[in-house]
Amino acid sequence: MGTISEKILSRASGKTAVANDFVMADIDYAMAHDGTSILAVKAFREMEVEKVWNTDKIVIPFDHLAPANSDTTASLQKDIRNWIHEQKIRNFYDIGNGICHQVLPEKGFAMPGKLIVGADSHSCTYGAFGAFGTGVGATDMAEIFASGKLWFRVPESIKITVEGNMNKHVCAKDLTLKVVGTVGSDGATYKALEFYGNTISDLSVSGRMTLCNMAIEMGAKTGIVPPDNKTLEYVKKRAVDEYDPVYADDDAIYAKEIHIDVEDLEPQIARPHEVDNVCGVSEVEGTRVDQVFIGTCTNGRLEDLEDAAAILEGKDVAVRTIVIPASRDIMIEATKNGTVEKLLEAGATFATPGCGPCLGGHMGVIGDGETCISTANRNFRGRMGKGGCIYLASPATAAASAVTGTITHPGNV
Amino acid sequence: MGTISEKILSRASGKTAVANDFVMADIDYAMAHDGTSILAVKAFREMEVEKVWNTDKIVIPFDHLAPANSDTTASLQKDIRNWIHEQKIRNFYDIGNGICHQVLPEKGFAMPGKLIVGADSHSCTYGAFGAFGTGVGATDMAEIFASGKLWFRVPESIKITVEGNMNKHVCAKDLTLKVVGTVGSDGATYKALEFYGNTISDLSVSGRMTLCNMAIEMGAKTGIVPPDNKTLEYVKKRAVDEYDPVYADDDAIYAKEIHIDVEDLEPQIARPHEVDNVCGVSEVEGTRVDQVFIGTCTNGRLEDLEDAAAILEGKDVAVRTIVIPASRDIMIEATKNGTVEKLLEAGATFATPGCGPCLGGHMGVIGDGETCISTANRNFRGRMGKGGCIYLASPATAAASAVTGTITHPGNV
Repeated sequence: MGTISEKILSRASGKTAVANDFVMADIDYAMAHDGTSILAVKAFREMEVEKVWNTDKIVIPFDHLAPANSDTTASLQKDIRNWIHEQKIRNFYDIGNGICHQVLPEKGFAMPGKLIVGADSHSCTYGAFGAFGTGVGATDMAEIFASGKLWFRVPESIKITVEGNMNKHVCAKDLTLKVVGTVGSDGATYKALEFYGNTISDLSVSGRMTLCNMAIEMGAKTGIVPPDNKTLEYVKKRAVDEYDPVYADDDAIYAKEIHIDVEDLEPQIARPHEVDNVCGVSEVEGTRVDQVFIGTCTNGRLEDLEDAAAILEGKDVAVRTIVIPASRDIMIEATKNGTVEKLLEAGATFATPGCGPCLGGHMGVIGDGETCISTANRNFRGRMGKGGCIYLASPATAAASAVTGTITHPGNV
Repeated sequence: MGTISEKILSRASGKTAVANDFVMADIDYAMAHDGTSILAVKAFREMEVEKVWNTDKIVIPFDHLAPANSDTTASLQKDIRNWIHEQKIRNFYDIGNGICHQVLPEKGFAMPGKLIVGADSHSCTYGAFGAFGTGVGATDMAEIFASGKLWFRVPESIKITVEGNMNKHVCAKDLTLKVVGTVGSDGATYKALEFYGNTISDLSVSGRMTLCNMAIEMGAKTGIVPPDNKTLEYVKKRAVDEYDPVYADDDAIYAKEIHIDVEDLEPQIARPHEVDNVCGVSEVEGTRVDQVFIGTCTNGRLEDLEDAAAILEGKDVAVRTIVIPASRDIMIEATKNGTVEKLLEAGATFATPGCGPCLGGHMGVIGDGETCISTANRNFRGRMGKGGCIYLASPATAAASAVTGTITHPGNV
């Protein structure tokens, strides 16, 4: 009688784990990126443990400031590369490979039923594959590097059922923003979300990643889509290990159940400066933007770039428009199928696969008083640059806004 | 009886200009990029002149920190965009369009016989089109913004004749490094270089840009290739105005004549930390590198990327390899013809068309003690990051070095 989270944490801890229990769990895969590995490795060294627990189960992609934005960053990254080499960690993805939350699924680490912990808050993305994915701090990650274990309070779960057929130009990001707006930014604190309903089944794997990626924006410990044929189709080609899909029992106990109807949903926007300040695009249409950003672990996948290209093909952007594929593999696919060319011809600017300006570190930080419409997952004050305003939207809405220079419904260009 | 420089400055000043004369010349086109326009606009504002002299003749590409690497940069760029808008300057190329010295020729501003002044030292690149292109400081540029005029001491000229057929894998950059090594970094201070000889005639327009780009590395005021059919073929499709090719008179007086034979030249390398510390690749082969950088106004053009792709196709890079097309147009062409795909498949990392890490500002700065082999034009201490070492080379040599992780002759991979 368990939820997906209870059942995964039971398997990982070797005992029956029920909501609110404290358990010590074996971590299946541990991830840190260039930003957090610096702190995690520092803490690991202070522990004076000679070797990491497992050289195959640690995954380190460089994505946050990649390529390095300063000599300080470069020297810190050099130190981490040396440590990775000394420790013989096998799964290192240097600059240009892409964003951690894209790289782990692509390289087969995100598998149903696994417990995957990342030193990054959006590690909940792996829930799109039926994994329990969650973020931890860098010192917790140092402990995992050493022992392969971490304690958890088993989260209560919320069952979210999304139903209805979405209109043309309405996509996974709009659904996701609708969920975030409905649940609220603190509406799921330390809860695990489980997503059900025909709209979720209809989502592509990419769309489910968008949804689960933003579970943390509601305070959730993770967000999980039960694995189906789409999941298994994606995973079986890539999986680095064996895996067992885990499903909730019929009598699983949920702290809450939420139903959301998206039948007549219009494209959604999260207005500055809170992620749950969500409205339909019609409420903010015409708002002037200085920059458009299409990318990130939320919306930098092939179908996102294709959605943007479908809008931008044969048109010219009216404002600076930065497009960043979430990974090298996506950039290769988008190059092969003509998407990159269409976006470049429309005047879009590509940057290195990675996090780009999402966190305000480089590659398109916005200036004081500037407004960006972004496909990312966070819009709090200062996120992409002190004094800037961020509207969160889908790739289609962002692309339509690039054409006009103002927030625009993708059906209106 | 004039050199090309004397004849261009005579036309531009309306009087016969002879070497060492001081003349006040009318500027045909004035360029400032995001880095220098900040200072030029500040100085212009302090002059309290209401309007720039000509809204068609000022060209401003954003390339140095593009997209913005910080909120400070973003706010400064915002201010320049506002000034460009207020002043109704027509030729603004925002982030992603590429490097100034590539954008000006592509957009038809680099024409034979013109006097083109840029607030960037590598403005000598326009000499590849038979123009007198030269760099000035930002306050001089403010004066040009206001008046369209600038004084010059008419430079003496050095005639450099390059002859011989270059071996396979030896290209314009190798020839250029050979010239720099021969002349020395202070061997042409305030001189204008004129390039002649069958090897120069055989160079593509792209190769001539590589050569003229590095004239400043010998201290030269400019470096000019007399326009021929290749030049005119390139220019006639693009020119924004009428132009008259200018050639030296038979009895022109040169301060010096230099002959260089490249018949058996091997690929050349400029070793740390001086640009004229030049040797054949065989002398440094096997030197370990941490990063490979292919791009810049020296070597980020289509044929440079194609040279690199020819080496890298079907192979994997052994070290991090950053490729930055010099412009959006080049990236489009390289996307269309499969070059981008080949480089991505080999593991190369693309970044936004622009200057990239060349000047150590972002997008691949190197760390303390790290070594980069780069296709750029400068290798002085700290250029790409404090404590780093830079070896300058051709795209082919850089690509071959990417395959092995050590400096490698392109024929050896």
